[in-house]
Formats: sequence, structure tokens, C-alpha cells
Amino acid sequence: MYANNMISILNYYTTRFGELWEQSLFDLVEETVHRVLEQAGIDKQQIDAIFFANMLAGVLENNLHSPSKIAEIMKVNIPIFRVEAACASGGAAFHLAKNYLENHQEKTVLVVGAEKMTDYSPEETTIALSSAASGEEQEAGLTFPGLYAMIANYYLEKYHYTEESLAYVSVKNHFHGSLNDKAHFRKKITIKDVLTSPYIAYPLKVLDSSPISDGASAIVLSNNKSLIKKRKHFVSVLGSELATDSISLSKRKRLDEIPATKIAAEKVFKKTKLERKQINIAELHDCFSIAEILAMEDLGFWEKGKGGKRIKELSTMYGSGGKLITNTSGGLKAAGHPVGATGIKQIGEIFLQLTNQATNRQVKNAHYGLAHNVGGSGGTAVVTMLGI
Amino acid sequence: MYANNMISILNYYTTRFGELWEQSLFDLVEETVHRVLEQAGIDKQQIDAIFFANMLAGVLENNLHSPSKIAEIMKVNIPIFRVEAACASGGAAFHLAKNYLENHQEKTVLVVGAEKMTDYSPEETTIALSSAASGEEQEAGLTFPGLYAMIANYYLEKYHYTEESLAYVSVKNHFHGSLNDKAHFRKKITIKDVLTSPYIAYPLKVLDSSPISDGASAIVLSNNKSLIKKRKHFVSVLGSELATDSISLSKRKRLDEIPATKIAAEKVFKKTKLERKQINIAELHDCFSIAEILAMEDLGFWEKGKGGKRIKELSTMYGSGGKLITNTSGGLKAAGHPVGATGIKQIGEIFLQLTNQATNRQVKNAHYGLAHNVGGSGGTAVVTMLGI
Repeated sequence: MYANNMISILNYYTTRFGELWEQSLFDLVEETVHRVLEQAGIDKQQIDAIFFANMLAGVLENNLHSPSKIAEIMKVNIPIFRVEAACASGGAAFHLAKNYLENHQEKTVLVVGAEKMTDYSPEETTIALSSAASGEEQEAGLTFPGLYAMIANYYLEKYHYTEESLAYVSVKNHFHGSLNDKAHFRKKITIKDVLTSPYIAYPLKVLDSSPISDGASAIVLSNNKSLIKKRKHFVSVLGSELATDSISLSKRKRLDEIPATKIAAEKVFKKTKLERKQINIAELHDCFSIAEILAMEDLGFWEKGKGGKRIKELSTMYGSGGKLITNTSGGLKAAGHPVGATGIKQIGEIFLQLTNQATNRQVKNAHYGLAHNVGGSGGTAVVTMLGI
Repeated sequence: MYANNMISILNYYTTRFGELWEQSLFDLVEETVHRVLEQAGIDKQQIDAIFFANMLAGVLENNLHSPSKIAEIMKVNIPIFRVEAACASGGAAFHLAKNYLENHQEKTVLVVGAEKMTDYSPEETTIALSSAASGEEQEAGLTFPGLYAMIANYYLEKYHYTEESLAYVSVKNHFHGSLNDKAHFRKKITIKDVLTSPYIAYPLKVLDSSPISDGASAIVLSNNKSLIKKRKHFVSVLGSELATDSISLSKRKRLDEIPATKIAAEKVFKKTKLERKQINIAELHDCFSIAEILAMEDLGFWEKGKGGKRIKELSTMYGSGGKLITNTSGGLKAAGHPVGATGIKQIGEIFLQLTNQATNRQVKNAHYGLAHNVGGSGGTAVVTMLGI
């Protein structure tokens, strides 16, 4: 790495997440790319490469080879890469974009994530999402709610918690979603709402689960010193680590942790020399409520097994006065989960917070933030560290 | 780039290409990864990252998130990335692997490509492949034979050639395939065979077209000096350039060239300071016979419009005494075209040639070789330069 090669996020734009039936996948990409460049005052001719995250367009709409389709929209001939790692596609694309800049001086790239999921029946989309699970799990009829339900059952029983602990995750993240005008769900919910919502895979209920959403998000990433200097707002990328693990739950030693998260987190904290207590904000991969509790433990913020108790303190909620506020975007739960866009939106939310652009959900004096993006039931994890 | 950071190919292994009904996608990956490491005497613990190329597993068998499935097979937790750029997936994965090593010293990575295409009806596979075309082209019912047929018609009419010119590409590449025991087709064919084979999209016939194949290929890529020193055979990666272009043929200025190939070639020749006449061997993306003729012109080996004449000299055939021999593997036409594997096999064939391991098709005194990998009808092109 060049000693002088600090990589910075110069801008972030996201579409609203939700049921965007009026826009196709590449309509969303076009809007996002256009707006993120326009807002930053950067011309497309200044972009040297694009990293694009998308999971399902091949399966759902026979739509592959997105690099050439983005080249067509933008009328450019630059290198464009599509990266896919299920729900961690955005984090993986960002990781490779950072790596690209570490090796190219004075360049600027776009990292774009997009997904179109609501034009199909929920059954079609759920089956398409199960493509991220192992062949054996698919054959057994397990979809992701089922896999995370197994993890949740194991955790609740081992550490003697009830479903009420899980409900606090959703209540917090829906409160945050109510403050984010780009969120899929902007309605506050109560513990009772969660506990009385229908089961989809015991002990997980509808209100423990992130929705099926459309959306696109984009980041301008640069190590071009003169471009960085011109920007009023920018955030430094301090680290990004990606780890993998066996996708099959049956191949894991225990079900109360996500080893890929632990490995990626250990590496990124070691390389950045930051301590857990220095992190002010984090976007966590709460595809299901249980996942946020495991994430807080596996990232090293909470002791293993204590998360079911700690979440009930709500010290990670905006306005609580806690030292670490999580998922201010609303998380996957309330902001929505258009798979390819999710990892980009997480990093984008940290950018907004660290640059004091998070409006009515602005956490005060935030200096360091972390984004945590997971693929499938933990087969891939990416932890990205940002600072100002 | 580190001045001292020369990246070398340490080994290459490929499965046979063909109808491999006994092996699943990940069976092929497992065989390939195991064999390429075993032959090189490298332990999987010495591998720092994996770049995996695959196009169709999502569409054809609802199989995504391959990084976690490779992690499961190999029992590792290292960074693994899936890259997709239609038929250029292999070249794109290699490009990103090279970029990764340029930024990480003393590391070793695997680049693996695999595709499983023959378990489905040809119609299913052809429709899946059309995912690489634009939405408008798909809606118009155009598949890839149709798109390349439009290009072939335009070229033959503009420069006053007949279908006979195209046939020479297939005859040459089938002769090379007859010398390669990993090739899908090992039968020599004649000009008459090609000209009397059935049309699939006028003027392209069955014997102008690469087949639907299964297969997997892997390369060990390293900048670990002590590992490189230990190897009897290794090849240096001199350059790799990737360019994109509008995927829709209707958005191109002319149909007798592939601009993405021209852009990538100009860049790689400029950066490596090599001249065309220094290249001894090349693997070209001959998905259809016309594509090899355009490639020779767009790469700068033949003057634009002269290819229809030059190919009939057969100076690029093994044993001709020509200064540049092309597609000694048999090309996509005869060696087969398991999409994700193709770009890796091309680079692997150059590795075999440059290290004098190409047995009965060994080109003498080959010092520089080039691999040319195209996605779709030219929406992506990757040109990789190797030397010894």
C-alpha cells in the first residue's frame, strides 16, 4: 500500500428502498449513478472503473453481464466488474474497489449496488434467495428464514432468552427507519407488535425479518488528492476485510456465532489498531433480528451470550445516549434489503453520519464507524471501517 | 505497482472439456483446485485468496454465493470472490486476481473458472446464455448465434468474402483440438465439412460455432519470491487490460469490429511496450468463426478487412511455420466453451506453450503470448499478456 494513498468516500446516493414498480434494475442504476456524480460535481469522464454488486438479476430476469449494460447506460468503455456474494455482494464489491485504488494512484471509482426483487411473487424471490444456501439445504427445503430460525432457536435455548429479546432489535430499527426518508418501512412498532406478528419460521416472526425490497445505492471512492481536496465532506476508508466460511450450517462447529464475522472483525481491528470502544456507529447485517445480536457479539462489542440481555437496554438506539449507536439507517429490517444495494447503503449511512449529513437521526461526535455485511447464513462476511 | 512485484503463473490444470455428466459444478471445482495445488506442491494453507469465474449456475441451477461453497469444499476462511462478465468471466477474474497481487506482497492466489452447461436442453442453455445480451435483443428473440450472424453478414458483404473464409477458422482450430487431449472435439474437419454443415443463423453453420461444454480450469498466481524460485516452470504476467462497450449491437457505430477488444489491446501493448510482431502465440475468443477473424484485426495483427483473405493462408496454424500461431488449444470452437472456464483455459494454454509443456502441439521458441477473452457480443473484452 502507498503510504500516501488514503482512499476516501466523496459522495453517496441511494434511491428510496421499497416496492419500486415503476423502475427496472437499470433504471435504478441509471438514477443512482447520475445523481451520485451530479451531487459530487464529478463528470463521468473522471470515473476510472466501476464495481457493481447484484445478486439475483440472472436468476429472476435472465439478466447477466451487467458490466456491458452499465457501459451502455453511461456511454463509457472503462473497466466494470460485477461481483456477487449473495447478500454480501455490496461489501465484496466495495472491498475490491478499495483494493483497486490501493494499486492505482490518483483514480476515482464508483461502487454501485442494485437489486430488483418485488416484481415477482414472494415465493419466486424466496426460492431465488435460497440459491445462496448449500445444495443439501435447498434440497431439504430450507429457505433463509428457516436457517436463521435454527440459529435463533439454538441461541435462545443455550443462553436462556425468550423471543422478547429478539423483538428489541426490530423495535429499535423500525424507530430508526421512521427517521430515514429513504427507508422501506417508516412506521414505529412496539414489542407487542413484534411478538404478536405471525410466525414465518419459529421463533422468527414477520417482524423479526427484513423485507423484500427494490433499490440501488452508489458511492464515489477516490484517492485523487485534488478531487478529495475540493470536497466539503469526505470520509477515509481505514480498512476492509472479507472472510468466508462453509455455507452449510451442518458443517459449522456451533450455531451461536458467525465465524466469518469474527475473522473479518479481528483482522480489521488489528490492522486499523482501533479498539471496539472507539466505534461510535455501526451498520449491522440484521436480515433477521437474531443476526444483529450475533453480530454485536461476533464483532466484539458484546460478550458472547450476553446479547439477549444487552439489546433490552436499548443503548444502541438513537437518542439513548449510548456510546455505540447501531443501524441508524433502519438496518435491513426497516430500511429494506435490496440485496446488492444493502452493503453499499450500510457504508453510505456511515458516510452520512460521519459527515454530519444524517439530519434527524444524526449521531453527535461520531468519528469512527463500521459496516458489517453478511452473505447467506454466514458464508461470507465483510467488515469495513471508516473514519473522519 | 511495486517495481519488484513480478506476478507469475506457477501452475495450470484443466479438466477435460465436454459432456461431463458424472460431475457437478463443484465436483469440477474440487478436482481442479485439488489437482492444480497437488501438481504444484503447494498446500491450500499457502493460498491467500481465490477469484472464481462462473456465469450460469444462478440461472441454470439456482446456485449462487459460490465463494462460501468453495470455502466449504476447501475448508478455508480466506477471501473468495465470484466475478461474472458473461463469457469474459475468466479473463475478468484473472484481471482482478492480478490487481489483488499487485497490492499484496508475497502472496499466492488461485484463479478458478468453471461451468456446467450440458445437463440442460440446448434451448434452456441458449436462453440462459442470452442473459448476456441486451433486454431489447432478448425481446427481439436474438440469441448469440443470431447476433454474431449479423456481424458475419456485415463483414462478409463489406469486404467481399464468402463463407469459405470463415470455414478456415474452424478447420484450423479443429486440427489443434485433435492434438489436445483435454479438448471437447478431437476430430479434424475439412472446409467441405464446414460448408455443408447445417445453418444455425445464416451465414453461420454448426461448424462455425463453439459447442456447449462442461469444464473447469485453475491457475496458481503468485508474487511469493521463494515459491516462484522453487518452480521449474513459471510464466510472468506482463499485462492485463479490460474494456467495456455497449452490449447492444444497435448502439455500435459499425459491426465489423469489436471496440472493447481494440481498446484493451491498445492499452496492453502500450503498457508492456511490446510490438505485435513479438507475439508468438495467442488464444483468441472464437465463439463463432467470424469472431476469430475480427479478433486478429482488432488486436492489430491483421489489417482491418484483410482477415477474410489472411485466414486462408493458414499461417496461424500449428506446423505452418508462421510467426504467430493461434488457438493451439483448439480455441472455443474445438476445445469447447464452458463459459466461466474459457478465459482461464486460454491463459493456461499460453502457460503450457511458454513453458514447453504443450507436448504434441508445442510451438517452438515461444516467448510472448496473449489471451483474448470476450463477453457477449463484445460488451466486455480482456487482453492478457504473458512472457517468459
